[in-house]
Amino acid sequence: MSLESLREEVCRANKMLQQYGLVCLHSGNVSGLDRSTGRLVIKPSGVDYETLTPEDLVEVDLITGKILSGHLRPSVDLPHHLYIYRNMPGVGGIAHAHSDYATAWATVGRPIPLCLTEIADYFGAEIPCAPYVDNEGDNIGQAIIRYRNRAPAILLANHGAFTWGPTAIDAVKLAIALEDVAKKAFLACQLGKPLEIPLEEARKWYDKYHHGYGQIVPPRTPTTVSRGGSGPGA
Amino acid sequence: MSLESLREEVCRANKMLQQYGLVCLHSGNVSGLDRSTGRLVIKPSGVDYETLTPEDLVEVDLITGKILSGHLRPSVDLPHHLYIYRNMPGVGGIAHAHSDYATAWATVGRPIPLCLTEIADYFGAEIPCAPYVDNEGDNIGQAIIRYRNRAPAILLANHGAFTWGPTAIDAVKLAIALEDVAKKAFLACQLGKPLEIPLEEARKWYDKYHHGYGQIVPPRTPTTVSRGGSGPGA
Amino acid sequence: MSLESLREEVCRANKMLQQYGLVCLHSGNVSGLDRSTGRLVIKPSGVDYETLTPEDLVEVDLITGKILSGHLRPSVDLPHHLYIYRNMPGVGGIAHAHSDYATAWATVGRPIPLCLTEIADYFGAEIPCAPYVDNEGDNIGQAIIRYRNRAPAILLANHGAFTWGPTAIDAVKLAIALEDVAKKAFLACQLGKPLEIPLEEARKWYDKYHHGYGQIVPPRTPTTVSRGGSGPGA
Amino acid sequence: MSLESLREEVCRANKMLQQYGLVCLHSGNVSGLDRSTGRLVIKPSGVDYETLTPEDLVEVDLITGKILSGHLRPSVDLPHHLYIYRNMPGVGGIAHAHSDYATAWATVGRPIPLCLTEIADYFGAEIPCAPYVDNEGDNIGQAIIRYRNRAPAILLANHGAFTWGPTAIDAVKLAIALEDVAKKAFLACQLGKPLEIPLEEARKWYDKYHHGYGQIVPPRTPTTVSRGGSGPGA
Repeated sequence: MSLESLREEVCRANKMLQQYGLVCLHSGNVSGLDRSTGRLVIKPSGVDYETLTPEDLVEVDLITGKILSGHLRPSVDLPHHLYIYRNMPGVGGIAHAHSDYATAWATVGRPIPLCLTEIADYFGAEIPCAPYVDNEGDNIGQAIIRYRNRAPAILLANHGAFTWGPTAIDAVKLAIALEDVAKKAFLACQLGKPLEIPLEEARKWYDKYHHGYGQIVPPRTPTTVSRGGSGPGA
Repeated sequence: MSLESLREEVCRANKMLQQYGLVCLHSGNVSGLDRSTGRLVIKPSGVDYETLTPEDLVEVDLITGKILSGHLRPSVDLPHHLYIYRNMPGVGGIAHAHSDYATAWATVGRPIPLCLTEIADYFGAEIPCAPYVDNEGDNIGQAIIRYRNRAPAILLANHGAFTWGPTAIDAVKLAIALEDVAKKAFLACQLGKPLEIPLEEARKWYDKYHHGYGQIVPPRTPTTVSRGGSGPGA
Repeated sequence: MSLESLREEVCRANKMLQQYGLVCLHSGNVSGLDRSTGRLVIKPSGVDYETLTPEDLVEVDLITGKILSGHLRPSVDLPHHLYIYRNMPGVGGIAHAHSDYATAWATVGRPIPLCLTEIADYFGAEIPCAPYVDNEGDNIGQAIIRYRNRAPAILLANHGAFTWGPTAIDAVKLAIALEDVAKKAFLACQLGKPLEIPLEEARKWYDKYHHGYGQIVPPRTPTTVSRGGSGPGA
Repeated sequence: MSLESLREEVCRANKMLQQYGLVCLHSGNVSGLDRSTGRLVIKPSGVDYETLTPEDLVEVDLITGKILSGHLRPSVDLPHHLYIYRNMPGVGGIAHAHSDYATAWATVGRPIPLCLTEIADYFGAEIPCAPYVDNEGDNIGQAIIRYRNRAPAILLANHGAFTWGPTAIDAVKLAIALEDVAKKAFLACQLGKPLEIPLEEARKWYDKYHHGYGQIVPPRTPTTVSRGGSGPGA
């Protein structure tokens, strides 16, 4: 993928955070990485979503963490993005948000239980919650990595959530899905005790969703990336 | 009704799912059946609502379940739609969604109690909740059919809801009404114990709504279909 | 006021019900009365808010209840509007809705407590809740009239709410304010026990809001109608 | 800053109250003060946000409280704005709203606990709640001043909230952030007991947000005002 295409996709993914109501004012950020060149682009710090353009994004070298181009400062969360990319080889996009319901679960330190077929479809397991850490050094990155084999999403206590996937758009779609299931699971808790889905049942939904859902489209990069679809039940 | 008209109506009904906030990303689907030809049309799998056109819908034969035209794959929920049409002779439209509040009730396995005159108007009874089933074969269809004589809507535990009616638009209007009453009944439960309406009282509201409400319009097909109105209290 | 102006105002008031999210599909209705001619206009039954025009409204004689002009059937709630106008001499506009939070209070049969200065501003007292009645004859009208000296609004158990004022716009603004305070009082109940405001304190806010608030505008009809403003705190 | 620029900024800040859903009908108000001339401008009472223009704002003398220009009456909350400006030297903008979740906390008289990194970013401490006072004289102003050294925001029991900052835009952004964290903290309370962040941890987030966040921009007035950014986490 050209750098220009990457900038356009990551800009669109950032704007989706706002369009789907996942952020307040300037909060939240999405990045995307081109592994063939080792370059990532990320939202600049404190910039309005409405006026954000592909050119505003900050280009960063994955290995050195140095800014390669751009006149704006990158998101203060850049170190966490770098840490994830360096420690999860398959990841090409990361989204971070403090969306309302996901953050509510995080504020009481509870995982989101595997109680919806929609959670099974998208995540295949409960969404774990990492204990509180401060925002210094690699503390957030390390907290996330500890949970990397559970689901492509994690809650950070008192803080918010991260989601990741093959591309920036995939990551932001998981952020949208995470908030959606966080809300439904929250509502269910107000009515009683959510019924949990056994892991072996969740596997059925996950497999069908990732292999039988959506339209067959040719992968757009030489790497074979499953792009079967991005929403369950249709 | 011509196939072209059916495609237009079902496309509009699918878009209503999104306009009324009942779906997340690509989730949810609506189908419509022309019983005179035995052909139904349904949303393709994993397609954006914004770009959906009548031509994108997939045409399917009711008896054989075979795709008659269309270059896209149908919704993975097609088998459930077929099962309902085959077992409920009066149904000409079906809607499926994981809307927030209806799904919250389903996630704790509780029916929505008959506590609102609006529930009486639209559904005439409480909205039942079927136990969890997986998404293989006719499991979902069979779960629904067991409850067919209760109300034109059902919750599926851990999953979402189905509604049905004479046409696709009727079905999606019931999906909208279901989410509306699911929210109000949810809110009431947070304030105390909802007062229930006796069934014989509910009958009064249902009858008035189905016979004294709305404008007199000529039925649009030879079959006499009650189209007295689609919302209570006005 | 000319009949044409009345139709325009009542049409606008009806559309406000939808713009402010107080109705689902076709539910809800607003009417306005010109006491100098004894004619009222009301929303037709089961008509979409988007397409509603001043000409669609149904004109009715206050004394006889007969339809004076219009080719559409009036709202099924017309008898309740007539009953209120006949028994509350100062009322020139009535709004009915099943808005989410007001209806939640009504579904557990609880009044909305006098716990917000905004309730004091608009209503001067708690919002009472009348017990369930069916929709036959004057049952709803009679239930409302019993509470007429409390506040310009009432909840109807299991059903929804009515608000009234000098004009249709005043009535619909109170419907908007009612839903607003119903939501805040609901939320407060989830955090603890709402602090109540003593009636003598509420009187201060009510008086200031009704006499010191808003801009001085000439009354638009010979009858002196207080139109000091329609929202507190600004 | 010219008076014209101040009017434009304060008009925009008032409209943001509505755009972000913090007000109902005409409620709420924002003012801005130019300390070099001792003149402030404030929203007129009971005026629609949609039609509000910079010229509609009322210009008031900080020392005398007299109206300097404008044909409309000022907000009834003008005395509270004056009291704050006179007693908090660094303040150049004030916002008042009865936003849903902030007011819910105020209605039970509870502070919003320091349970979110976003609270640490913006406010550096829990948001206090002042006991109920009536709206006469300087009662509200005095209630606010008692809490001035805690956070740039305060809840008023049974009533709503005030926020303040260097400019009107800063004040309204804090009103937006206050409602955002009030909602998340509310939701967390429905799921369990929010984990609290120790004050010394909150200091880390506050410092990073106020010194390392956003873009470097030249201060726009001779007074050095930190304008590093207005939203955390990006």
